[in-house]
Amino acid sequence: MNAENFGSSERLVTAAYVRQGAQGRRAHELRLRALLEQGKCPEDGWDESTIELFLHELAIMDSNNFLGNCGVGEREGRVASGLVARRHYRLIHGIGRSGDISAVQPKAAGSSLLNKLTNSVVLDIIKLAGVRTVTNCFVVPMATGMSLTLCFLTLRHKRPKAKYIIWPRIDQKSCFKSMITAGFEPVVIENVLEGDELRTDIEAVEAKIKSLGAENILCVHSTTSCFAPRVPDRLEELAVICANYDIPHIVNNAYGIQSSKCMHLIQQGARVGRIDAFVQSLDKNFMVPVGGAIIAGFNESFVQEISKMYPGRASASPSLDVLITLLSLGASGYKQLLKERKVSFLASNTFFKSAGNKVLVKTALCGKACLCLESH
Amino acid sequence: MNAENFGSSERLVTAAYVRQGAQGRRAHELRLRALLEQGKCPEDGWDESTIELFLHELAIMDSNNFLGNCGVGEREGRVASGLVARRHYRLIHGIGRSGDISAVQPKAAGSSLLNKLTNSVVLDIIKLAGVRTVTNCFVVPMATGMSLTLCFLTLRHKRPKAKYIIWPRIDQKSCFKSMITAGFEPVVIENVLEGDELRTDIEAVEAKIKSLGAENILCVHSTTSCFAPRVPDRLEELAVICANYDIPHIVNNAYGIQSSKCMHLIQQGARVGRIDAFVQSLDKNFMVPVGGAIIAGFNESFVQEISKMYPGRASASPSLDVLITLLSLGASGYKQLLKERKVSFLASNTFFKSAGNKVLVKTALCGKACLCLESH
Amino acid sequence: MNAENFGSSERLVTAAYVRQGAQGRRAHELRLRALLEQGKCPEDGWDESTIELFLHELAIMDSNNFLGNCGVGEREGRVASGLVARRHYRLIHGIGRSGDISAVQPKAAGSSLLNKLTNSVVLDIIKLAGVRTVTNCFVVPMATGMSLTLCFLTLRHKRPKAKYIIWPRIDQKSCFKSMITAGFEPVVIENVLEGDELRTDIEAVEAKIKSLGAENILCVHSTTSCFAPRVPDRLEELAVICANYDIPHIVNNAYGIQSSKCMHLIQQGARVGRIDAFVQSLDKNFMVPVGGAIIAGFNESFVQEISKMYPGRASASPSLDVLITLLSLGASGYKQLLKERKVSFLASNTFFKSAGNKVLVKTALCGKACLCLESH
Amino acid sequence: MNAENFGSSERLVTAAYVRQGAQGRRAHELRLRALLEQGKCPEDGWDESTIELFLHELAIMDSNNFLGNCGVGEREGRVASGLVARRHYRLIHGIGRSGDISAVQPKAAGSSLLNKLTNSVVLDIIKLAGVRTVTNCFVVPMATGMSLTLCFLTLRHKRPKAKYIIWPRIDQKSCFKSMITAGFEPVVIENVLEGDELRTDIEAVEAKIKSLGAENILCVHSTTSCFAPRVPDRLEELAVICANYDIPHIVNNAYGIQSSKCMHLIQQGARVGRIDAFVQSLDKNFMVPVGGAIIAGFNESFVQEISKMYPGRASASPSLDVLITLLSLGASGYKQLLKERKVSFLASNTFFKSAGNKVLVKTALCGKACLCLESH
Repeated sequence: MNAENFGSSERLVTAAYVRQGAQGRRAHELRLRALLEQGKCPEDGWDESTIELFLHELAIMDSNNFLGNCGVGEREGRVASGLVARRHYRLIHGIGRSGDISAVQPKAAGSSLLNKLTNSVVLDIIKLAGVRTVTNCFVVPMATGMSLTLCFLTLRHKRPKAKYIIWPRIDQKSCFKSMITAGFEPVVIENVLEGDELRTDIEAVEAKIKSLGAENILCVHSTTSCFAPRVPDRLEELAVICANYDIPHIVNNAYGIQSSKCMHLIQQGARVGRIDAFVQSLDKNFMVPVGGAIIAGFNESFVQEISKMYPGRASASPSLDVLITLLSLGASGYKQLLKERKVSFLASNTFFKSAGNKVLVKTALCGKACLCLESH
Repeated sequence: MNAENFGSSERLVTAAYVRQGAQGRRAHELRLRALLEQGKCPEDGWDESTIELFLHELAIMDSNNFLGNCGVGEREGRVASGLVARRHYRLIHGIGRSGDISAVQPKAAGSSLLNKLTNSVVLDIIKLAGVRTVTNCFVVPMATGMSLTLCFLTLRHKRPKAKYIIWPRIDQKSCFKSMITAGFEPVVIENVLEGDELRTDIEAVEAKIKSLGAENILCVHSTTSCFAPRVPDRLEELAVICANYDIPHIVNNAYGIQSSKCMHLIQQGARVGRIDAFVQSLDKNFMVPVGGAIIAGFNESFVQEISKMYPGRASASPSLDVLITLLSLGASGYKQLLKERKVSFLASNTFFKSAGNKVLVKTALCGKACLCLESH
Repeated sequence: MNAENFGSSERLVTAAYVRQGAQGRRAHELRLRALLEQGKCPEDGWDESTIELFLHELAIMDSNNFLGNCGVGEREGRVASGLVARRHYRLIHGIGRSGDISAVQPKAAGSSLLNKLTNSVVLDIIKLAGVRTVTNCFVVPMATGMSLTLCFLTLRHKRPKAKYIIWPRIDQKSCFKSMITAGFEPVVIENVLEGDELRTDIEAVEAKIKSLGAENILCVHSTTSCFAPRVPDRLEELAVICANYDIPHIVNNAYGIQSSKCMHLIQQGARVGRIDAFVQSLDKNFMVPVGGAIIAGFNESFVQEISKMYPGRASASPSLDVLITLLSLGASGYKQLLKERKVSFLASNTFFKSAGNKVLVKTALCGKACLCLESH
Repeated sequence: MNAENFGSSERLVTAAYVRQGAQGRRAHELRLRALLEQGKCPEDGWDESTIELFLHELAIMDSNNFLGNCGVGEREGRVASGLVARRHYRLIHGIGRSGDISAVQPKAAGSSLLNKLTNSVVLDIIKLAGVRTVTNCFVVPMATGMSLTLCFLTLRHKRPKAKYIIWPRIDQKSCFKSMITAGFEPVVIENVLEGDELRTDIEAVEAKIKSLGAENILCVHSTTSCFAPRVPDRLEELAVICANYDIPHIVNNAYGIQSSKCMHLIQQGARVGRIDAFVQSLDKNFMVPVGGAIIAGFNESFVQEISKMYPGRASASPSLDVLITLLSLGASGYKQLLKERKVSFLASNTFFKSAGNKVLVKTALCGKACLCLESH
């Protein structure tokens, strides 16, 4: 309600109470304002009423929800089922334009704001989680693997001769498929055993680059989050090699936002060498339904190039989920979750140590450890 | 979002689109303003997005939804279950105060507005449905029978000696019980057969009043909506008698808002004689869940006396249902429903006439006819 | 889904996964079965998915949700607005029948189950909260004050000559009005100061009974939950007097379920003397929206008489709220809340003691203490 | 509720009413059974209560909703926000496996059923809309353009030497980008003017194939739905050419399901020649939010190859939307929509004819006509 409507309300309800109510509303507006101006995850989580009010506000900014909007023929954003309309808070237009999945779209100021804010809030969280120099990111409604594919397809245009992707081995089907689907040949670099751990064979990577020729290599495709005994790739060394040979470097950071170790590796890699983009899943990192990813990087124009590769408007559903979740947790709630994860590591460590499980203890360093514990 | 927040949005989304969105919002605000200023059922129904936005706006005016509102100990309007909070749109305070179920309550400007607007919009519909000179009404979260009881209990204070209620017979258990529960003795006046119809025996009513003594009679309790062969009471004649003998007159108009005949009878009764209050059910008249009623009248102070008899704050749930329903239908939608009901009468008439069902045909005059058709 | 449908699912999805899913469903069914068979609040709270599934199951047992149910004319339980239908989980029929608010209704097996289960689960909680010998209770969609009125109206039929209600003074408007509305004359008994506390003047009560004559007294109307310096009435002594003089005893236990002290007093009163009914609010005791109450007692037939006084079917909304809430908390969750309340007392005690606030400390005995703290 | 629970209910509610309720449930089960056994869109739409009950039933088959499912560490399908969980009906696992977006997944029988049923029901609608010999399809949570990209990436593995895509010109950015993103060179074939219409230049297509060499051509990429004066491509002739030269043929049928003309063209093309896959948008064809597409074809193994190219599990959100929508409309409702669309064509035709708008009249043949009318 605007000032006029509060005024009209005084006809019905004591003016003092209406003023009190207007102040209540003002507090919500201020929260929203902070979000719009700073584009950061609010420190304290919002309650559901603020979040839902905000989403309703966004929705009425989209033209499909304009009153009296029903002309001849087909209408933008018409939805047949009330159940469907409601579960999307009547935000129907999706995100992006055919030219750029990060772009604002005409006729849908609300959906555009949703898109921009989500990407901005997620960027804030990535910084908070340890990659402080990240410059740009966007949520894409595709699996991590398909998002990696999009990165590779983008690089193809920059490196038309390249056929190979250097890939320190990691036994995850979708990582492998992400390269195959993009039409490249994965060059698998076996890991070396150091103590109990399987780690990146840096020498083998460099040797392979030399033998294939840097210009024939699309990129190095490294991995942070993984299962024991595999440990995160030596990102710093790989980043330095990529810088030296002028080869792009794409990091599969699937579950890594929740791991300070993984995030630290990315930050360090970008500081000392080259990382073009790092890709992570939405579901595990933000506890939302499966099906979205974040593509992030240190070079705004390259990240934008990737976002411009997606042909068509995309589903806003994963963006909506992650925005609701982060507004609901707040930065402090998210940090608390990161902390609990660590504590749960230490607890499991103790447990597994006492059980004599040497190998698993080491994996506590990597974001997948908890998952491990469950599946073993 | 207020003007400042739209301004801040321009940082993220093209200013022109934001302006378009702000205009979209403006249209919603204007609708709301018309409602607040006129207190009438909008001619055209609102879509669900406008209604829900409006309810969210009301909710954040209630103190239980004020941000940062969590002190020591127990808090007003705390709700344990999220499912419960949501299904009430976080409007938790109920309606009224211990002093008056129609009154506004401190700390709950939103719930108070809900209460006031509902009563105002329902009053508008009662006028529109035919009782043009009604001056006051309120929704009460009790069955029609219990609401009649409340009317009788109110009259007791005005007529301390009265023990009897004059009641032209109608075979509905809850009508009878409404008098018993209030502690009065129903004086049943048998109806007379006129042609196929059972109608009020006006002479018997007057004779009984004389024999009992007007001061010993709490009120005449008449009925509009009924099953064949019983037809609506002769409200005009009863109202005249009540005026002549200075006896209150309470009308059970249970399903009558939807019947132009019933509403016409009430209007005429009030014009030529005395009707103190007429009571109707929410469920059938407004197609909402069972459990609410409307107490209406022609004398503001008497209706207010009734509303002041309810001890304590009351459930807002029936008010919320009827407000949502009427905003959603709009006055035009409600009129359309009244019309369809008539058409369905005519259709049934034809059907029953051809089946030789003489009695039922006549009942088309009474609001219960359709119900009849179903149950026979 | 039934066994046949699980079978059909195996055509689409691996049989082993379907079996796993069927087991998942079985766990929900078992929960539900325990509820239906024992009629008790489950020890552990149910999650929202179990609760909502259960409510959907209840809804499809009501005839308004029968498929293909659309005959000529008006249909039972038709609801115009989808928003309204959904917020009530399509449970539209209300509770009770015109003959009895606790009764099952034809055509609405689901709503009837809801009603019966709610009353049964609430009874279990009352026992758990300290009144172990309670035999019967029902939720009524009216304020505590109006529910007290209903009790008084019921007693009128048993004591036709009675005009007075003996009422140890308590400064709450709706308690007073509950008697006025019922048409009785409250006989106020001033409290006596014992130390810092205002307590029931037992002698004055007995003297007044003698002077008015027991047959002229409808009942004693006592109060448990109250603000300092007023402390709960001496229920044991009052109950003994009521037994001795054969006078009904109605207890206003508004906020008392949450107070072990109040519940203990009621249990003791019923053990040593006479308590006919005790009435409590739903909102504060169960953290649900305002507008419902529980009428409970030790004599099944009297409680049933009260439930038969409500003329008409009633709103199921408060019953639905309290059932959702109790299923969601579970008995253990509810006990935890009671415990937290105590801890918060002790904490406040310490605080107020150190602040030298002697009077308030004492009120820690009574359920209203926290509320006090807030409003002072 | 199962039979045992209905039995237990008889303890609380009259057995006859429970039986009636059980029959009500049975009707829902039968609907569901028909869906599971036939895998077809039900002729009559389901009401919201049946749909929501069904979705709740699916959800409890997924392991994230198993009761007592909370072990150490991270749990599959954990969702932080209640708002998010609810809006997805607690179906959190997404669709597919890393190996195949159409595959069932362990631990998620409900989500797997959702996926299978959606694809099956959509296949039924495609047949009903005119492509009767379609054998296979799947919903993919990507824009039409990105889905075309996926088709092209799949073909790459079958035609490793191919660099070109033959593309009769159509001025839509995302169609063009779909080829670029996949890493191919679009070979644009200009259309020829026939009367007022721009139509496929079949001779030019064939000439270009000859000049480039069939083995160097990935596929012909044709278009059905388009804006005037462009008319749908000559699919039959193109399909025959593709068959003759053994070149794959991918059809962009973006908005074409709703157009009997477009669907007829595809059916004819497949009958007389070669169509490998046809791709359509979910939003306009099924009135759901933006962001999904359907990839369909006449050769099961090829369609499956495409579904196996998507690396990772994908969002279930578009599948959920389209399933809800089709269950809600029913086949009859969908056919009615197709019919209304035609009527609206004729109406516009008349309008535009009288306005002398010759060109637009012709476009009535193509699915985009209505959209045209709006944007002109």
